[in-house]
Amino acid sequence: MKDAHRDAGPRVVIIGGGFGGLAAAQALAKARVQLTLVDRRNHHVFQPLLYQVATAALSPADIAAPIRHVLRKQANCQVALAEITGIDLANRLVKFDGGPAHGESAVEYDWLIVAAGATHSYFGHPEWEQFAPGLKTLEDAILIRRRILLAFESAEYEGDEPRRRAALTFAIVGGGPTGVELAGAIMEIAAKTIPADFRNIDTKTTRVILFEGSGRLLEAFPPELSERARRDLEAMGVQVRLNARVTEVTADGVTVGGEFIAVRNVLWAAGVVGSPLARSMGVELDRAGRVLVGPDLTVPGHPSVFVVGDLAAAKSAGTGAAVPGVAQGAMQAGAYVGRIIAGESAGGSALARKPFIYRDNGSMATIGRAKAVAWINGMKFGGFIAWALWGAIHVMFLVNFRSRIEVLLSWLWNWLLFSRDARLIIGKAELDIAIPRDAELAERTPS
Amino acid sequence: MKDAHRDAGPRVVIIGGGFGGLAAAQALAKARVQLTLVDRRNHHVFQPLLYQVATAALSPADIAAPIRHVLRKQANCQVALAEITGIDLANRLVKFDGGPAHGESAVEYDWLIVAAGATHSYFGHPEWEQFAPGLKTLEDAILIRRRILLAFESAEYEGDEPRRRAALTFAIVGGGPTGVELAGAIMEIAAKTIPADFRNIDTKTTRVILFEGSGRLLEAFPPELSERARRDLEAMGVQVRLNARVTEVTADGVTVGGEFIAVRNVLWAAGVVGSPLARSMGVELDRAGRVLVGPDLTVPGHPSVFVVGDLAAAKSAGTGAAVPGVAQGAMQAGAYVGRIIAGESAGGSALARKPFIYRDNGSMATIGRAKAVAWINGMKFGGFIAWALWGAIHVMFLVNFRSRIEVLLSWLWNWLLFSRDARLIIGKAELDIAIPRDAELAERTPS
Repeated sequence: MKDAHRDAGPRVVIIGGGFGGLAAAQALAKARVQLTLVDRRNHHVFQPLLYQVATAALSPADIAAPIRHVLRKQANCQVALAEITGIDLANRLVKFDGGPAHGESAVEYDWLIVAAGATHSYFGHPEWEQFAPGLKTLEDAILIRRRILLAFESAEYEGDEPRRRAALTFAIVGGGPTGVELAGAIMEIAAKTIPADFRNIDTKTTRVILFEGSGRLLEAFPPELSERARRDLEAMGVQVRLNARVTEVTADGVTVGGEFIAVRNVLWAAGVVGSPLARSMGVELDRAGRVLVGPDLTVPGHPSVFVVGDLAAAKSAGTGAAVPGVAQGAMQAGAYVGRIIAGESAGGSALARKPFIYRDNGSMATIGRAKAVAWINGMKFGGFIAWALWGAIHVMFLVNFRSRIEVLLSWLWNWLLFSRDARLIIGKAELDIAIPRDAELAERTPS
Repeated sequence: MKDAHRDAGPRVVIIGGGFGGLAAAQALAKARVQLTLVDRRNHHVFQPLLYQVATAALSPADIAAPIRHVLRKQANCQVALAEITGIDLANRLVKFDGGPAHGESAVEYDWLIVAAGATHSYFGHPEWEQFAPGLKTLEDAILIRRRILLAFESAEYEGDEPRRRAALTFAIVGGGPTGVELAGAIMEIAAKTIPADFRNIDTKTTRVILFEGSGRLLEAFPPELSERARRDLEAMGVQVRLNARVTEVTADGVTVGGEFIAVRNVLWAAGVVGSPLARSMGVELDRAGRVLVGPDLTVPGHPSVFVVGDLAAAKSAGTGAAVPGVAQGAMQAGAYVGRIIAGESAGGSALARKPFIYRDNGSMATIGRAKAVAWINGMKFGGFIAWALWGAIHVMFLVNFRSRIEVLLSWLWNWLLFSRDARLIIGKAELDIAIPRDAELAERTPS
């Protein structure tokens, strides 16, 4: 047994190894604290590229890294693979299922950072999830990849024309970055990557419909870029439907504004809701299940409990604007909290805390081959320049150097050859077996 | 609908997209036949490198390719993702579940090539499978990767010393190439890749025990190379136990020659048995469930039904020696059968068939970092030279050019940095959650 973690020092527990949790841990690298980062998965995922795994452009390992490997040089930090079952603020305890603390089922903390993220929200219709998977984890991405590829497989041998049509129709609900990126990527697969692979269907006839409830795509962007994204998608063949609210999702299709559309493949990119863990804290949440935090990102009345990332409903002290649920918001908040704890563990006063200021470094979304929109420091970019910026910035932020090379190589290759080499349907043998018909839609095992 | 497949020409059905089936299809590329290749998976897997996926060195997509993509330029060939439920030799029918033939549940053939491969055999103890997964598919590889990584995760927070010891003990049953390669790779992970990632355990104390029932490893190799492999493995820290027959496998460990060894992680590399599909043909099988074929690889009495690859018990006409169940055996047999059908479909006579001659191009197995054994044209190689040969030949045979670059890059990287970047535990969320104890061992969902 190594003894590094037995050094004295206050105990800091971080829940979640996403952008927020990892940034907090790294900001505490030199602090004299006993740090424990707990996640239910063994890997950090670079979520902005998750859609590329779902659309077979990248492999899971290209955008993920074992959390304990990322933090291996940080001797003050332990990493535990465990499920948190609850947070007891009164007794300063984090409770586990199974218990990472050498058989104990709870650990005490002096400071707690909750960075447990968000999950999909189906607007009060959890039954839609089985028909319309969302994209938050590697398992989600592999499931969606499987669905997309199986759609073409089943269409290839579908004798009934309306059913074939439905199998070759994709509906994406939600016109934010994830929805836009999925729509563009699926259209590219159908139109560029796989036409030569099939004998009985013309995959170029695939319909991709993107539904957005509001009046424009990419609401967080300036209207010109929203419009640009719409035009670019439509030029690729994607049908963009604005002001279109989905009122029903079944195995057979979606209902939008009273109109039923037969669709075999629905993907959900619409709403998110805070991790259920927030409810176990017994604190005030907003309508999206996020914890309402103060200017220093703490839970009101609990100055040593911070919430960062998608689980926090936070406001930037500079502008009073809401901190968006994006990677840079989580990273900045995690680093801010890490610095506060580092300072106070070295004798600083909690009274000296300055409020959190979110610095918006810009937003970007890819649309397709050499097409993207970007909004950086008030400047707007579209087309190839935005795409090159997007690529450069995303590769730069990948967590390890090897991934950067792999991803660049994959992109170059895919770009030159219209290729997507991760087109693998992986799953339970039984599920691979049958040409999926409706039964497949009811299946929900990520695999 | 494209009409390429509606051209006239006799119907050839190939069951299985492994080495044998793919070689047969490619040998028929220019023949005037209607070819259908059916597989229950959408991808061809380069099986000799499967152990590298299981040990996190490569990603699934590095060694697999969609079958229909591989055959996309072959206009006479259709690819169907479907499960075959039976073969009716009397009526020349292949039966499907679901039916790839536009709703039909069977297709007729003029020639049939059965290349359905083999699965694991547990020597009459199917109940061992849940504790000792084997390695034949990508799903198997991902499951085994998961098991290996979870073993270290659970050991990290195991308070009970004997249980931690068991979690850090790996038993591999079977000393053929797969067993040797798994043993070496797991030892390397434990000793070189991950020691810095853990705080509470010293992964260098991991025990890897390789059990072989016969008197030497790699029985298909010359005795000097078997001995070399044993010495190399032992130098790396692997415990090699020869003449060791496993008589019991449970969740708690293995029993070998009356001795019980507490082991949390057992991997099966011992026996294979022909695909259950062989039984549906109602023909004579050998003890390993393989079809006894004639000199032209046909089923006796059925000159238009061929069996190739691991499912065939075939003899080479040259030496009378059994054709081994390896990639090159399947590829040579597939190509041979493809050429026969190409000739006869162009008017040649079945009476002119020459018997199949297997040409042994050599055998090789990796042991570890820059260590391998190779036996090529009667010449024996060990150490770095064998390893370089092994690498060059395996990369050469990968099915697409992109994979070759990716795999070379991964190997270079892994070799320089002792790295293994595909260390992802992917699976159902519930399974990732708890630190697995015995319950995990009972779980069998590939994920």
